[in-house]
Amino acid sequence: MLQKILTGVEGLDIMLKGGLLPGRNILLSGPAGSGKSTLAMQFVYNGARYYHEPSLYVSLEESKDKLVEDMGKFGFDLKKAEMMGTFQIIGGPMAKITHFMQKVDADVLNLIGEIEEVIKERGIKRVVIDSVNLLTMLMTTEKERREALAALSNMLSSHGCTAILTSETEEGTMKLSRYGIEEFIVDGVIVLYLIRQGSRFVPGIVVRKMRGSDHDKEIRVYKITDKGVVVYPTETMFGRI
Amino acid sequence: MLQKILTGVEGLDIMLKGGLLPGRNILLSGPAGSGKSTLAMQFVYNGARYYHEPSLYVSLEESKDKLVEDMGKFGFDLKKAEMMGTFQIIGGPMAKITHFMQKVDADVLNLIGEIEEVIKERGIKRVVIDSVNLLTMLMTTEKERREALAALSNMLSSHGCTAILTSETEEGTMKLSRYGIEEFIVDGVIVLYLIRQGSRFVPGIVVRKMRGSDHDKEIRVYKITDKGVVVYPTETMFGRI
Amino acid sequence: MLQKILTGVEGLDIMLKGGLLPGRNILLSGPAGSGKSTLAMQFVYNGARYYHEPSLYVSLEESKDKLVEDMGKFGFDLKKAEMMGTFQIIGGPMAKITHFMQKVDADVLNLIGEIEEVIKERGIKRVVIDSVNLLTMLMTTEKERREALAALSNMLSSHGCTAILTSETEEGTMKLSRYGIEEFIVDGVIVLYLIRQGSRFVPGIVVRKMRGSDHDKEIRVYKITDKGVVVYPTETMFGRI
Amino acid sequence: MLQKILTGVEGLDIMLKGGLLPGRNILLSGPAGSGKSTLAMQFVYNGARYYHEPSLYVSLEESKDKLVEDMGKFGFDLKKAEMMGTFQIIGGPMAKITHFMQKVDADVLNLIGEIEEVIKERGIKRVVIDSVNLLTMLMTTEKERREALAALSNMLSSHGCTAILTSETEEGTMKLSRYGIEEFIVDGVIVLYLIRQGSRFVPGIVVRKMRGSDHDKEIRVYKITDKGVVVYPTETMFGRI
Amino acid sequence: MLQKILTGVEGLDIMLKGGLLPGRNILLSGPAGSGKSTLAMQFVYNGARYYHEPSLYVSLEESKDKLVEDMGKFGFDLKKAEMMGTFQIIGGPMAKITHFMQKVDADVLNLIGEIEEVIKERGIKRVVIDSVNLLTMLMTTEKERREALAALSNMLSSHGCTAILTSETEEGTMKLSRYGIEEFIVDGVIVLYLIRQGSRFVPGIVVRKMRGSDHDKEIRVYKITDKGVVVYPTETMFGRI
Amino acid sequence: MLQKILTGVEGLDIMLKGGLLPGRNILLSGPAGSGKSTLAMQFVYNGARYYHEPSLYVSLEESKDKLVEDMGKFGFDLKKAEMMGTFQIIGGPMAKITHFMQKVDADVLNLIGEIEEVIKERGIKRVVIDSVNLLTMLMTTEKERREALAALSNMLSSHGCTAILTSETEEGTMKLSRYGIEEFIVDGVIVLYLIRQGSRFVPGIVVRKMRGSDHDKEIRVYKITDKGVVVYPTETMFGRI
Repeated sequence: MLQKILTGVEGLDIMLKGGLLPGRNILLSGPAGSGKSTLAMQFVYNGARYYHEPSLYVSLEESKDKLVEDMGKFGFDLKKAEMMGTFQIIGGPMAKITHFMQKVDADVLNLIGEIEEVIKERGIKRVVIDSVNLLTMLMTTEKERREALAALSNMLSSHGCTAILTSETEEGTMKLSRYGIEEFIVDGVIVLYLIRQGSRFVPGIVVRKMRGSDHDKEIRVYKITDKGVVVYPTETMFGRI
Repeated sequence: MLQKILTGVEGLDIMLKGGLLPGRNILLSGPAGSGKSTLAMQFVYNGARYYHEPSLYVSLEESKDKLVEDMGKFGFDLKKAEMMGTFQIIGGPMAKITHFMQKVDADVLNLIGEIEEVIKERGIKRVVIDSVNLLTMLMTTEKERREALAALSNMLSSHGCTAILTSETEEGTMKLSRYGIEEFIVDGVIVLYLIRQGSRFVPGIVVRKMRGSDHDKEIRVYKITDKGVVVYPTETMFGRI
Repeated sequence: MLQKILTGVEGLDIMLKGGLLPGRNILLSGPAGSGKSTLAMQFVYNGARYYHEPSLYVSLEESKDKLVEDMGKFGFDLKKAEMMGTFQIIGGPMAKITHFMQKVDADVLNLIGEIEEVIKERGIKRVVIDSVNLLTMLMTTEKERREALAALSNMLSSHGCTAILTSETEEGTMKLSRYGIEEFIVDGVIVLYLIRQGSRFVPGIVVRKMRGSDHDKEIRVYKITDKGVVVYPTETMFGRI
Repeated sequence: MLQKILTGVEGLDIMLKGGLLPGRNILLSGPAGSGKSTLAMQFVYNGARYYHEPSLYVSLEESKDKLVEDMGKFGFDLKKAEMMGTFQIIGGPMAKITHFMQKVDADVLNLIGEIEEVIKERGIKRVVIDSVNLLTMLMTTEKERREALAALSNMLSSHGCTAILTSETEEGTMKLSRYGIEEFIVDGVIVLYLIRQGSRFVPGIVVRKMRGSDHDKEIRVYKITDKGVVVYPTETMFGRI
Repeated sequence: MLQKILTGVEGLDIMLKGGLLPGRNILLSGPAGSGKSTLAMQFVYNGARYYHEPSLYVSLEESKDKLVEDMGKFGFDLKKAEMMGTFQIIGGPMAKITHFMQKVDADVLNLIGEIEEVIKERGIKRVVIDSVNLLTMLMTTEKERREALAALSNMLSSHGCTAILTSETEEGTMKLSRYGIEEFIVDGVIVLYLIRQGSRFVPGIVVRKMRGSDHDKEIRVYKITDKGVVVYPTETMFGRI
Repeated sequence: MLQKILTGVEGLDIMLKGGLLPGRNILLSGPAGSGKSTLAMQFVYNGARYYHEPSLYVSLEESKDKLVEDMGKFGFDLKKAEMMGTFQIIGGPMAKITHFMQKVDADVLNLIGEIEEVIKERGIKRVVIDSVNLLTMLMTTEKERREALAALSNMLSSHGCTAILTSETEEGTMKLSRYGIEEFIVDGVIVLYLIRQGSRFVPGIVVRKMRGSDHDKEIRVYKITDKGVVVYPTETMFGRI
């Protein structure tokens, strides 16, 4: 059996009983402001810095400049990581591409092709796609959405990449993803909640599905600290989701 | 009256009062991470290993390689079972087929034809289709969905196969299947729940419908252990579904 | 005033204060596994065996063979009843007809015509259509659905048949039928519930509407026994529907 | 100010503080089995028998024969009333008209024209349309529905008829009518509820709107007795609607 | 700063801290039977009688004759007010216009033009449109609805009219208007509730938004008396909306 | 790291731990009457008056005249601010543009172009778009909506503007924006609530997301006073949202 790889998010690795299986795609879903991008960044940044795995962060919502700046506040020096050659960002907010009107399919395939080029060239092992919502929102039918996700997932698997795909869930629903199809493409699902307790939205994290791997079944507490996301793998959560 | 066949999932066979009627199609529904694939695999793996019934697992979501690896952790040696000739996997995640755009109907019929070939050639008696969501998600109208499911079910019945069709339900609904039509094609419905109790999602199982066969009406507890799914047929569940 | 006819389901006849008015169409609705087919079968089987009324069961979901086998377990000898000439099954699961794509209307009208032939030829007085969902699911507009149902109901009324039309309701809704139009075609509505109480789904039955006939207004308990559905007309139900 | 006219349903006339304003259209809405047809029939039958107002009952759901039979059980002798010349039924369940496919608009206008002929010829003063759902279900757009209702309402008003239009509400919603537009055409709205209390569905009635007329604001108890609907205008209701 | 104008509904003027800002459009929303038309009428009737402002009531749901009759019961002598020249009704229920099928846009623009003619000719300062639902229900797309409302609002503003637009909300929703776009056209929103308390529907009123003007934030009690709507600006409401 | 800029809304700056990151787009969402326009105005008015940043308020719902008048009551002298050259309003309620039927795309792009002209000419640093609902309501598909928002956001970012985009949420939903896509275009989300407590709607504010910046996670109390919105950054809120 393959050795698990560490995410480097300590509490999360405990919840995952040793980390993620290599070569798998994981969906990381949660509402706005739950820290999906930060947690996903830790996975690839730690991979590049501590585990010697060439890593790639594809930022479809935020520009590369803003991302570098925002992650700096957690002490992640993305510029330096890029210069050291084991970390790379494909930036530019796809949500802000305004001129492809008629040729969406082509654009999405181009993007996937572009990502594949980088993966092959650099021997990338860890990938974050932040977020897959942007890919799916560009499509108008369920079939097109499924196919775009499948093309992406196929490509990532074929190169043995361990990948985290983020997905923003709509406030006030229990769905695991925006269109309810994203979870069919992946091997595991990690969910972030913001659980209202009185006047606070308390963060909770649960591993809902992880094919081929045992994992903690409890909802655990996490915090967004000045070092990034920290998971408390022995603290349980109560309250209304 | 026909003799029931054992699933080999001990507690479940007790809930089913001796197992499943041969030649019937059963819907196994539940949310992401509830263990549908594992339970379904036990049905065919046990069939091949302990009950001398040639068995087939059709994996539409996960590749054959990943499936073999993932099921290995429960001690199921699928490779060896395949070599012994009574077990077979049709793998390759259908969700990841990306190039059939216009010819979906043809593809689904091809797939059904391919499955039928294997059934005839090997004298298959137990079948798992994991999951039927993929078939239905490819279709755009309710009528097409119904017809694809019917073609599959007809074929399975015509060869006397006992079959489990898995279906992933959307989080936060009470529906028994994704489109609310899958349950019309089958002879029985088994539902898996993840029932939130405080900070945990506790697994519960109920037999909701089983034509021609008496069965337990209670929601029972089950666990995903390192031997696969284990049902506790005398433990009852409480809590909000 | 016309004499009521007994369903032969004792407790139900008490709820109906003597049975059903002859020549009326009744909707029997409920969720998957609530025993709609069994209760409906008792109505026609009892009619043929005990009340000397030629009876017909139209099975659109299940094949005739499976139906005969399944009902055998309740002690209903459908084969023998057919041989005695007062009972007939039109079988073959319509849900599994896969080749009429373009000619749905024609097929439904053909089916209704076929049923009418049998009714005229045999002087049928009691009819079950199990289920009308199949008819309505074949149609794509509300108008077509209404017209198919109307054609069926018109035909049944014109021959003076007392008929039970079954309809499976979607889990987690309060609707009386799948499309909310079926209840406009009928003279009465009987609803089966599976009411969750702790870890059980307890069966409850209520007569919601019965034109021209007084009836019990309470939700009563029923059970699916090895003799078929038994209604307890003096036991009341509590719990959340 | 115009003198109110009595419905003859005693408790209801008290809730209405003396009855209905003449020449107005009232929506009577409620779920299946709540007694809408019976209450509406009392309005026209009493009008013909006790208040010397030529009255008309238009039955779009049920055939005239069945209606006569069903209402007979409440002691309403509709045949005799018709023979005395002050009462008339336009029967024939519109829901069962199956051949007008393309010419729905024409049919609805024809029906309205037919009703108008009877009104003019007989000097009709009280009218029941049971139910307007049938008219609206025939239409496919909101605009068409509104126009059919408007044509009907215009016609009734132009002849000074006091009219009750029944509308069946869908189970499990709070809407006052099926499409949420019927209430814009009328001068008043009376709602029937079946309020679940433990194992019973208890009938409740409220006058929600009555232009130009004061009325009781409480939800009152009513019963369907062997004399028809009886309202208890001083008994209040509690429980979950 | 402009002087506020009194509505003449005493308690409401207290809630509004002196009345409405002149030249503004206000949405008055609430369910069927909550007294929207009566309250709106008081605004224009009082304007004409006590505040020397030429006023106009546009009745799109009810005919002028019925409106005059209905409002008479509150002691409003609309005929006399019209004769005195400072009050005018544009009547005729738009809901009952049946022949404009294809030329809806034209009709709505004609209606707006007709209203504008009256405003210019008479120097109208207060206007009620009862209800804007009718305008919006005639349109089939959100864009058309927005444009019809905008054309109306633009016209009213350009003549400096203070206007109340009524909107009937659907039972059982919390929306402020039927299509959720009406509130974008207006400068203020007043909401009427019918809050169920036991067996009663108790009326409550709240000023939810009032641009450029301070106002009470509490839900207050009101009653429909024989003098019209009376607001109790110091009584607070409790109960489930 | 870039220095944060103060909004000038004291309590809010404390919640934001020093203000907003320059060059970011923030979504300010909340229901009708929650004070979105007022809070947004304070951001740009304070910017112009106290922080020497040329500022622009784009009012798509309200005319410039009404806006100036309404904001006057909070003591904001917008006329004077405009004359001093550091503040500008682009007024005219877009909701009231009635003649662009076919050329919506062009109009929206024109508007964005017009805004860009002002930004370039005046060196604008702070911008409010009140509201983005108007832009999105003009579009008919999700893709068009996303592209219009993206074009706007791209333009604002390219000029280094710090911008607040207001969005009115529908009553009775938990969504952060009208179409559930607006939050993907922005770097932060601030939500205003009107939380019902007995008979009152109490205002609450929370910072739900703020990329690259730490912030308070609690729901805090705010008031709309005669000086504008005041946030109480140490008072917590309880009650049902």
